[in-house]
Amino acid sequence: MKPLLYALLGLPLLFSGRLYAQAPPVHFVNTLMPQPQSLTVSDGWLPVTSAWTVSLNGSENALLKSATNRMLTRLESMTGVELSRDLQQPAQALVSIEIKDSSLTMPALGIDESYTLDIRAGKVQLQAANVFGAMHGFETLLQLVQASGDGFSLPFVHIQDAPRFPWRGLLLDPGRHFLPVDVILRNLDGMAAVKMNVLHWHLTEDQGFRVESQRFPKLQQLGSNGLYYTQDQIREVVKYATERGIRVVPEFDMPGHSTSWFVGYSDLASAPGPYHVEYQNKIYDPAMDPTRESTYRFLDSFIDEMTTLFPDDYIHIGGDESNGKQWKENPSIQHFMQQHNLKDTAALQAYFNARVQELLKKHHRQMVGWDEILQADLSPDVVVQNWHGIEFLINSARQGHHGLLSKPFYLDHMYSAAEMYAADPVPADAGLTDAQAKLVLGGEACMWGEQVTGLIVDSRIWPRTAAVAERFWSPANTRDTQDMYRRLQVESLRLDALHLTHLSGPERGLRQIAGSEEGAESLSVLASVLQPVDFHERYAEQHTSQRTPIGHLVDFVHPDPPMKEALAAMVETYLHSTDPAEHKNALAALESLFQSWVSSRPALDQLAVDHPFIAEMQQRREQLPRLGLLGLESLGYIEAKQHPSAAWLDQQKQLLSDAGKHVELTDFVVLDPLNALLDNISATK
Amino acid sequence: MKPLLYALLGLPLLFSGRLYAQAPPVHFVNTLMPQPQSLTVSDGWLPVTSAWTVSLNGSENALLKSATNRMLTRLESMTGVELSRDLQQPAQALVSIEIKDSSLTMPALGIDESYTLDIRAGKVQLQAANVFGAMHGFETLLQLVQASGDGFSLPFVHIQDAPRFPWRGLLLDPGRHFLPVDVILRNLDGMAAVKMNVLHWHLTEDQGFRVESQRFPKLQQLGSNGLYYTQDQIREVVKYATERGIRVVPEFDMPGHSTSWFVGYSDLASAPGPYHVEYQNKIYDPAMDPTRESTYRFLDSFIDEMTTLFPDDYIHIGGDESNGKQWKENPSIQHFMQQHNLKDTAALQAYFNARVQELLKKHHRQMVGWDEILQADLSPDVVVQNWHGIEFLINSARQGHHGLLSKPFYLDHMYSAAEMYAADPVPADAGLTDAQAKLVLGGEACMWGEQVTGLIVDSRIWPRTAAVAERFWSPANTRDTQDMYRRLQVESLRLDALHLTHLSGPERGLRQIAGSEEGAESLSVLASVLQPVDFHERYAEQHTSQRTPIGHLVDFVHPDPPMKEALAAMVETYLHSTDPAEHKNALAALESLFQSWVSSRPALDQLAVDHPFIAEMQQRREQLPRLGLLGLESLGYIEAKQHPSAAWLDQQKQLLSDAGKHVELTDFVVLDPLNALLDNISATK
Repeated sequence: MKPLLYALLGLPLLFSGRLYAQAPPVHFVNTLMPQPQSLTVSDGWLPVTSAWTVSLNGSENALLKSATNRMLTRLESMTGVELSRDLQQPAQALVSIEIKDSSLTMPALGIDESYTLDIRAGKVQLQAANVFGAMHGFETLLQLVQASGDGFSLPFVHIQDAPRFPWRGLLLDPGRHFLPVDVILRNLDGMAAVKMNVLHWHLTEDQGFRVESQRFPKLQQLGSNGLYYTQDQIREVVKYATERGIRVVPEFDMPGHSTSWFVGYSDLASAPGPYHVEYQNKIYDPAMDPTRESTYRFLDSFIDEMTTLFPDDYIHIGGDESNGKQWKENPSIQHFMQQHNLKDTAALQAYFNARVQELLKKHHRQMVGWDEILQADLSPDVVVQNWHGIEFLINSARQGHHGLLSKPFYLDHMYSAAEMYAADPVPADAGLTDAQAKLVLGGEACMWGEQVTGLIVDSRIWPRTAAVAERFWSPANTRDTQDMYRRLQVESLRLDALHLTHLSGPERGLRQIAGSEEGAESLSVLASVLQPVDFHERYAEQHTSQRTPIGHLVDFVHPDPPMKEALAAMVETYLHSTDPAEHKNALAALESLFQSWVSSRPALDQLAVDHPFIAEMQQRREQLPRLGLLGLESLGYIEAKQHPSAAWLDQQKQLLSDAGKHVELTDFVVLDPLNALLDNISATK
Repeated sequence: MKPLLYALLGLPLLFSGRLYAQAPPVHFVNTLMPQPQSLTVSDGWLPVTSAWTVSLNGSENALLKSATNRMLTRLESMTGVELSRDLQQPAQALVSIEIKDSSLTMPALGIDESYTLDIRAGKVQLQAANVFGAMHGFETLLQLVQASGDGFSLPFVHIQDAPRFPWRGLLLDPGRHFLPVDVILRNLDGMAAVKMNVLHWHLTEDQGFRVESQRFPKLQQLGSNGLYYTQDQIREVVKYATERGIRVVPEFDMPGHSTSWFVGYSDLASAPGPYHVEYQNKIYDPAMDPTRESTYRFLDSFIDEMTTLFPDDYIHIGGDESNGKQWKENPSIQHFMQQHNLKDTAALQAYFNARVQELLKKHHRQMVGWDEILQADLSPDVVVQNWHGIEFLINSARQGHHGLLSKPFYLDHMYSAAEMYAADPVPADAGLTDAQAKLVLGGEACMWGEQVTGLIVDSRIWPRTAAVAERFWSPANTRDTQDMYRRLQVESLRLDALHLTHLSGPERGLRQIAGSEEGAESLSVLASVLQPVDFHERYAEQHTSQRTPIGHLVDFVHPDPPMKEALAAMVETYLHSTDPAEHKNALAALESLFQSWVSSRPALDQLAVDHPFIAEMQQRREQLPRLGLLGLESLGYIEAKQHPSAAWLDQQKQLLSDAGKHVELTDFVVLDPLNALLDNISATK
């Protein structure tokens, strides 16, 4: 029986994923993230069916084969359509995949990542320069799949795509809080989904040395509290990343941020030991001794060993926040500085950097460092990663250095996706020449580890990092923030399908605090309008350390939660739409939302009796219903075209001002639109 | 400032986990699961504070130290209270932990698993015979923690506890669908939480050989499609299990269920190859050749290698569903049977079993097998695992064999927790002597792998298996089903805190199908009243194979979902409670629930337009609002003491009968209470 007949006879289309019917979706909705360089859509849809066949030109490339299988598996689990893995000849295949250079098996900076994707009647054609471009094409293909009641289909499109920047990174910091391997792996999946290509792995810190060295085993044995990656695990991560077109750039922070090295090898330090692994979040004094040849012999051997684990051309040496204190206090180092005419500790660090760079060169590695390493005589082939502000990046480009932008992409600063999206590694007004602009390789979203564990780190990274990834990949003029947010919501669910825990983790957290699924629903009314305060504010309020237990409400609210944009859009429509129906719908939606805040009170009060983590949110619990009332009453005045008393207006402004304070480790994300409502009301004269 | 002052001054008790205040919870609510052998509660509460100190008598036992640290970490993440890891002398310590025999470092069948736990003012005292009893005590301790707005506390209790049965197992079957290591590890955490102590790891099947052999590498290289556990991973699992007091009993199924062995080593089989890894769910003919000495030489060497990975005294040899077909068709095997006076294939299998048992003995292992191995001359020290029905188990005990009960605990048969809870490995009416009863070692919940993947397996196992665990641990007279369900709800959240995915997995699945969080809420109204059909019914409807994609709605509904018990209880209260307030509340709750079913229609219709997996649930989508109407109208008739027409009544009965059919791979779980409502209505005469 044909599918159409099922429909005519009124029979259920049972498991119609296999019986794709006649009516595909009619509108193509562009949810691609990042947006491609060019996209042409034409009328027509290609159904996903179990009759699909695949050809691989370049199948001798093992990465291409495994990437194709992974793509098919994801397509299967999305659609429920069983797909064959037997390869066909291109002429016979519905899906033709073709790479020009099948010899490339390791991603590297600057390789050609372009691809073209054609979907038309009976044909999907993906062409790429190499396997890594093909991987990007696979992600685009999967993002194009559209569901309807009748099945799954792909729109007829022609896409030509290539990245704007060659270095699109995410920094993960297991130094402060160790991140188990599965956390790293699933985040690699997330990165690949949005076409990022560098994992910057911050492996050493005062608070922990996280990589196994067989030559210097006391590094991890004494420097990690037992939490480190074995060499097998490192190899697993590098392999997993490579299979997804992602380079792994390890960071071994030196000369500062290095206490954990000295626990096992105190001779490396600039002051006598003993040292112990630190757990507080602050800048520590210990630094390597740059004046002793033994330091460089150690690093030479260590780097040599690390190059067997990390095949990428680049190694990051940190270089940040070395305060020079141990150097100033050590007479022999002071003597060395005089002898070598090094006028200050910055000059001594420059000397150290130059020595380390020599070692890296010897081992065929290029150096990356934070912007403190930018000194007058810095070798031009060093990559400077900016964290102090874009002006430093622009400066370093003017001086002829390769650079990376990070500062606006510090995820622990809780910037909104919109704020990060607006930042550009090469701002139009920077006045860089084309050659200088080319020195900006891209940037990195940075997930520093002081206030996150594997339990919550995904929700701090995603989905915001998808907006950053689009900034690094898509053309500079792709800047429509509202459209970005629309697609970000879709991307968030795609990342969820990859088993990232940015949605499920906070949901579990609320459930645990609330003690039941029903309680979690009540609690989520409060959680939906809050976000964590930024890194500095949290540190000031809580003095977080490595030992601070994670699991309070702050840990389960999202930075830049969907409610922020949603409420802003509703209020905007309500106040400014000229379409009466739109206006009316917005009013109804606002009333219902504000009402839910007002009625949250009894359930939240009960939860506060039951659990200290809700009890402690006393101000936020009290402010929420009052904000709801503010909203409802404002709508009332506006609708009735009435004027409240001046006292009422003062009271509301006071409420918004109180609610705007950083308290209980959280910030409201709904105050701007409420302010906008109030601005439309004037008091009686 | 003291906490009390905060309260007096009206200041928020910010992060009061650290500032435990004066008002602990007043009622002790027993949520222990499994229930202990004896429990005495007295008035008083011990607050959990950062002043807690711990002493360990037996700290030279590394397992005890790591288990204590894990317990403290879990307590920290539950309470947000930072706890010291520095050990104190018993006299100074608030928490004293003491084991009598600190030499035991490997769990084994029949070890003393008892413990006593005392909590009183200023003191927690845990005593156990060995580290594994102490681990059970830790789980009990964590289950006792009670939250209130003011903080966390433990009730004053005296608990003496020990298991009823020494073998409390869970079977996991990566043979049919491979289960990644992290799935195994988190399920070990779940098992430990409910004091289970045997992982029965079904490692080989027609559909896959899942363990790395270095002596016979073609076993996994050709027999697994690349999905197998490396020896490192096996060691990791065994270590993780050992650290949680769990024995790992590997199963190498033979002589049948063994196609995957023959892909690499066809000489082992009773018919010439070539063989390939199978993917369908059925009983295959291939079986090992029991007549060739080379078979036993192979097994001898294989078992020898496996004993280096699996330290437990027991090895499971399967022995089930060997259909004898290859043996009957092989003239040389027929000849052998005549020569050895083996009258049928069952006798040949008994011969094979005896030979294998000799090999196991040589390697100091005891044999376990499914109940097909129970033959007249079976050696008495073999453990027979029952899967055909409890009468076989009773029989085998009468014949002097050790036995395990599994049949009522087949998780893929979708029995309710109540049904499994009611089954007893030694039924009171079995008429076994005490000595015979002692031969019943316990039982196992069996999670067969045909219709589950790592994505959904947790939701098939948990929380139901906690009820099975209680059956195996608690006294035989612990049988209050309603009370079990009350505690099961709490246990489910505890398992969720251990990162089992029985709640988060289905939530993610609904979100993915519905395309948004809001859509998932609408869809959950339908999902909450459905459960998957049982294994046989699903196979009949869908012909599931290893390649069947997982991800339809059936995969994200729960067996025995909470709604089942909840609705039954509501209707029971509504119909039979003599308390008018209770009656009224039940009425209101029922009305609101039925109303939500009625109003589910538009949202579900829209979702069905958007996604084929909802479109295909056509009957269930249509029945749900009609069932809601049935409920509302029934309540109306009962409340008004009116009689509907006979036609109305017939129509409702027809609806219930239609809804009771197995369709769309799902069953409604709400029909019994609806029937009970209807039974209270009689038609006009």
